[in-house]
Amino acid sequence: MSDLSPAPFTPEERNPARREVDLLLTNISWLVTCDERMQCFRAGAIAVDGTDLLAVGQTGHVQQQFRARSEMDLSGFLVLPGLINTHTHAAMTCFRGLADDLPLLRWLHEVIFPAEAAAVNPEMVYRGTLLAGIEMLKNGITTFCDGYFFEEAAARAALDCGMRAILGQGVLDFPTPDQPDPSRSRDRVETFFDAFPEHTDRLRPSIFCHTPYTCRPETLQWAKRLSKEHGILFQIHLSETAAEVEDMVQRYGERPVFHLDRLGVLDDRSLCAHAVWLDPGEIELLAARQVRISHNVESNMKLASGVAPVPRMLAAGITIGLGTDGCASNNNLDLFSEMDKVAKLHKVIHRDPVVCPAPRVLAMATRDGAVAIGWEDAIGSLEVGKKADLIAIDCNQPHLTPLYDPASHLVYAVKGSDVRHVWVNGDMVVRDGQVLKVNEIEAIAAVNRLAGRIRLDPR
Amino acid sequence: MSDLSPAPFTPEERNPARREVDLLLTNISWLVTCDERMQCFRAGAIAVDGTDLLAVGQTGHVQQQFRARSEMDLSGFLVLPGLINTHTHAAMTCFRGLADDLPLLRWLHEVIFPAEAAAVNPEMVYRGTLLAGIEMLKNGITTFCDGYFFEEAAARAALDCGMRAILGQGVLDFPTPDQPDPSRSRDRVETFFDAFPEHTDRLRPSIFCHTPYTCRPETLQWAKRLSKEHGILFQIHLSETAAEVEDMVQRYGERPVFHLDRLGVLDDRSLCAHAVWLDPGEIELLAARQVRISHNVESNMKLASGVAPVPRMLAAGITIGLGTDGCASNNNLDLFSEMDKVAKLHKVIHRDPVVCPAPRVLAMATRDGAVAIGWEDAIGSLEVGKKADLIAIDCNQPHLTPLYDPASHLVYAVKGSDVRHVWVNGDMVVRDGQVLKVNEIEAIAAVNRLAGRIRLDPR
Repeated sequence: MSDLSPAPFTPEERNPARREVDLLLTNISWLVTCDERMQCFRAGAIAVDGTDLLAVGQTGHVQQQFRARSEMDLSGFLVLPGLINTHTHAAMTCFRGLADDLPLLRWLHEVIFPAEAAAVNPEMVYRGTLLAGIEMLKNGITTFCDGYFFEEAAARAALDCGMRAILGQGVLDFPTPDQPDPSRSRDRVETFFDAFPEHTDRLRPSIFCHTPYTCRPETLQWAKRLSKEHGILFQIHLSETAAEVEDMVQRYGERPVFHLDRLGVLDDRSLCAHAVWLDPGEIELLAARQVRISHNVESNMKLASGVAPVPRMLAAGITIGLGTDGCASNNNLDLFSEMDKVAKLHKVIHRDPVVCPAPRVLAMATRDGAVAIGWEDAIGSLEVGKKADLIAIDCNQPHLTPLYDPASHLVYAVKGSDVRHVWVNGDMVVRDGQVLKVNEIEAIAAVNRLAGRIRLDPR
Repeated sequence: MSDLSPAPFTPEERNPARREVDLLLTNISWLVTCDERMQCFRAGAIAVDGTDLLAVGQTGHVQQQFRARSEMDLSGFLVLPGLINTHTHAAMTCFRGLADDLPLLRWLHEVIFPAEAAAVNPEMVYRGTLLAGIEMLKNGITTFCDGYFFEEAAARAALDCGMRAILGQGVLDFPTPDQPDPSRSRDRVETFFDAFPEHTDRLRPSIFCHTPYTCRPETLQWAKRLSKEHGILFQIHLSETAAEVEDMVQRYGERPVFHLDRLGVLDDRSLCAHAVWLDPGEIELLAARQVRISHNVESNMKLASGVAPVPRMLAAGITIGLGTDGCASNNNLDLFSEMDKVAKLHKVIHRDPVVCPAPRVLAMATRDGAVAIGWEDAIGSLEVGKKADLIAIDCNQPHLTPLYDPASHLVYAVKGSDVRHVWVNGDMVVRDGQVLKVNEIEAIAAVNRLAGRIRLDPR
């Protein structure tokens, strides 16, 4: 260019009427939208106003339309939608690593159930969920779908740490920490609704029926009816182990999916976790009812439950999100680690390296996860009109060098610890790897105090 | 204690003749020795002089015997031996994520082999291995056992970044990047020996015969003879895929382990990588010959090779180390991630949550890995008389809270990114997560430059 050539127009000069927005993220090296086409922009940009995504595209184009009160240059970064954890029991961080490598029934009856009976109360649920929220945010999870007890306390923790969440109040026909009398479990759900935080679009209540074998038919039916009345998600653990399926067949004369369908609880607002032991007829029926599945690969591996028929469910058109399950059976809350395992486990099980390719698995952790929990109008991809739930990964690191393909990196190379910045609903909640809304040191200390009591409980 | 009680003796006063050493690590919250008994000290301490471990035990005891020119308080930290990566092709970091999710033969013949033919030269091997070394050190791997081409360049990279390594010069009866004429591959090994860095106890040469199906019987025999003459490790890929085993049976009329045994190449200085497709007779023979195995779980999963019979090999008394394999088939160099998968995959495959418990898997990544590569006299556990290869993990983090059981945490919860400090041979090589011996930014930039050329090569 000759020295005499005029300086190029600045974006300001080209379009002085640019709309002012709260935040512009510019020069994003890899902007992975996770939209239907898995579009990826080099030198991408995002405009955020309030809670909303106003523009997603090339930096030049976005800067022509918008100027910002705050701007952040993200060259060297990969930006994608916040990950969606479709199944967890967040408060169980308090039991992380309390016991491992035990036979399932010993683990449940000698460790987990006694620990829960002794330790689960509103304080534990709040503290455990707050710690889980911090861990999830730092790992790039912006939304979680929970199921546990005292879920109004879990909701407060999600609110405090700045996450988006669906909180499922647990329902069983057995005494639970928050309802010793199972005949009154419906009252417990009503008090949960009453206590649920209002005035926020980040939280939604849900009902979580534990399983078809711990909830009687009438319990499943009132819980689903109530879910429909409130327009909320109905959650349930489905066919996690071969033994429970045998038990159901003995008890009801039919496999669990048919049992649930006969009771009228299966539809597109039903989210089934695990779904390991399904026969082809059940897969077909789940697809026909548009039931959503949460695939919990690490938990299924660690507890030796089995391998869910993911390729078959996908072929049937079933929407599958990913979930970490609780920390007692994983032992972390990291969807990058889950994605890596989903992509690899089904390949080796099917002896086919083409199964579960990286972009498919990435969709499960984002866009499909949003569909799974019924929130796809607002989250799961970076598209204009959705909410600004997004994460930024610093790619300028040895283990992310070189970078030929962002989807491959996200599934096979990125760790949760590579997440540097996180926004939820347009609000920055993690900066430079540090949570901004809560005191991490206090949260760690509080759970350590609770754990000291759990460890000391005679079992 | 009353105000009038005398102050307790300081260690100095109790034993004024304490020996002065280079380094004391004290108040280690969890000191996991990985010795035969998997001993773990609370408030542990380590005394290091020169390259050697002089004491490992309780802080009080160690301080009674030793004083240090440099002391570091590691309360809140977990310290364990540096992890041992028993199988990798370090330079292949340059191909990380170049192509994934392809059928094996397309991946090899359309992507990896052409990329290797075009890109592999001494500079690429040096740069790729240096980047791999940085990644491994930051992930707590202090020793790697390599196999590739131009391995004198890989040796220089290991030397420069401060790692301990075994460098295996690749031998095939096909043209290779460093020996276009296969009839002269033995000469190539001799020039590799000549060029191998001297005056260091951190590096050892090795011969890596690619596979029984790419190396003729006479090649395998001279390579093993030469390995014996030099007292070095003989490495080979063994029965990674079902197809290669079929091929071998067709060609030689016997399965690969019997073939190798007939050629006299199997003994306790033979390290076989993968070892996926073994029949019971082969497992028995490997055990009888005391052959060492490198289990490469992530690579076997991603390439859909199959699941190695790990519980069966362990039951037969075979020593198994863990290996990441190269970055083209993984796509990272992180043994924490490998441990997590080993513990979980074999559980779900065998439908038994007791298989591969955490302490067993942790031993594979440390003590047994040292045996696998024939270096157990110096590394693999923190015991007096061994070398000071050790790593420190900061446990004061949300995803490591609470901590009931250190072995469980190391296998199921710790990430490579949790490693804060690393020492190799008594020398600090990572401090606060930053490598000290090489310039990380330059190493990243160099591989990015090489990758730009690889990407642009027409394929």
